[in-house]
Amino acid sequence: MILMELSARNQLKGKVTNVELGAVMANIKIEVSEPSVITAVITKESAERLGLTEGDDVCALIKSTEVIVGK
Amino acid sequence: MILMELSARNQLKGKVTNVELGAVMANIKIEVSEPSVITAVITKESAERLGLTEGDDVCALIKSTEVIVGK
Amino acid sequence: MILMELSARNQLKGKVTNVELGAVMANIKIEVSEPSVITAVITKESAERLGLTEGDDVCALIKSTEVIVGK
Amino acid sequence: MILMELSARNQLKGKVTNVELGAVMANIKIEVSEPSVITAVITKESAERLGLTEGDDVCALIKSTEVIVGK
Amino acid sequence: MILMELSARNQLKGKVTNVELGAVMANIKIEVSEPSVITAVITKESAERLGLTEGDDVCALIKSTEVIVGK
Amino acid sequence: MILMELSARNQLKGKVTNVELGAVMANIKIEVSEPSVITAVITKESAERLGLTEGDDVCALIKSTEVIVGK
Repeated sequence: MILMELSARNQLKGKVTNVELGAVMANIKIEVSEPSVITAVITKESAERLGLTEGDDVCALIKSTEVIVGK
Repeated sequence: MILMELSARNQLKGKVTNVELGAVMANIKIEVSEPSVITAVITKESAERLGLTEGDDVCALIKSTEVIVGK
Repeated sequence: MILMELSARNQLKGKVTNVELGAVMANIKIEVSEPSVITAVITKESAERLGLTEGDDVCALIKSTEVIVGK
Repeated sequence: MILMELSARNQLKGKVTNVELGAVMANIKIEVSEPSVITAVITKESAERLGLTEGDDVCALIKSTEVIVGK
Repeated sequence: MILMELSARNQLKGKVTNVELGAVMANIKIEVSEPSVITAVITKESAERLGLTEGDDVCALIKSTEVIVGK
Repeated sequence: MILMELSARNQLKGKVTNVELGAVMANIKIEVSEPSVITAVITKESAERLGLTEGDDVCALIKSTEVIVGK
């Protein structure tokens, strides 16, 4: 557990709708505001350490330098 | 202009609410669904090439490997 | 399909020479200009959604903040 | 403030030794364990929102997919 | 082998303590300074090309734009 | 100077054609194979430490997880 503020500006609250585990990585689906779904790929060990399961309230964090703009 | 499909799973539609130009980088605010605001940091030259201005309809693209999950 | 211009400055055209699917991720080889080969790791679901197969004409997109310079 | 656990595996504790603000970005030096210094580039607004100043106890967070290995 | 200097500011020396191979990706544990452990997720082919095994002296390279600061 | 092999699969050789310094960041143009130009955004201090100037032979390094595929 951490209690701190992060420099990452983009913090989208949502609910886990699917967890798919591979050998090393895991694909997590997060519904952030219907009908938007965020896909997060994290390590399997992080998915297990967080105990991610459907219905969990989570936050998708994205550093602003990672965002591409399309127009 | 490109007409193609992208591997990047996360594509959030929104409207530009602010553009701040530095010497090399630019900070773009995109309102994706009230009250969520996405911050994108892109090069100043990309901001100028796209002609980003307030009110533009844009898309914030984020590769799934860039998303961190907090629980 | 999208019809838009992207802030990502680096867009290298090439041809898919290999697709290797794992449980969650996929490794895509793209020949951008002989003898350069770009390796892209994307989610398996994106590889399948795009229907990536050998011989496909594709574009490798890289945000400029992701590039490291060696001298 | 957030109270949550993050999927990002790499969390290095350290102390801010320098903050350099540009128009859009900021360069933050974090001494994580003498004599190692981590450089973080974040938005100026994040640096200001966190009120980063020399001597602050902070944490450098790095997603495992962002780490390159050299041997 | 390369003999060059890199723009990536963060170069942490350490020792590989675990290598876990998946179908496409590999999870590498690097002890950088006791008790800190860096997790790097790289492609399986890179892990094999470098011949990464426990006890190897390696370097974890991280671009400064990838670092998030928590306070 | 480092003498090591890197896990980053994408290493494009080229020549610096432009260096633009901001307060914190720098925009580097690298011609990798005519007429392709790679844009790299690195910290100003890295640009200065490497002494990047037009005509320099450099290498653009990109981790495979950072590449998006468009088709």
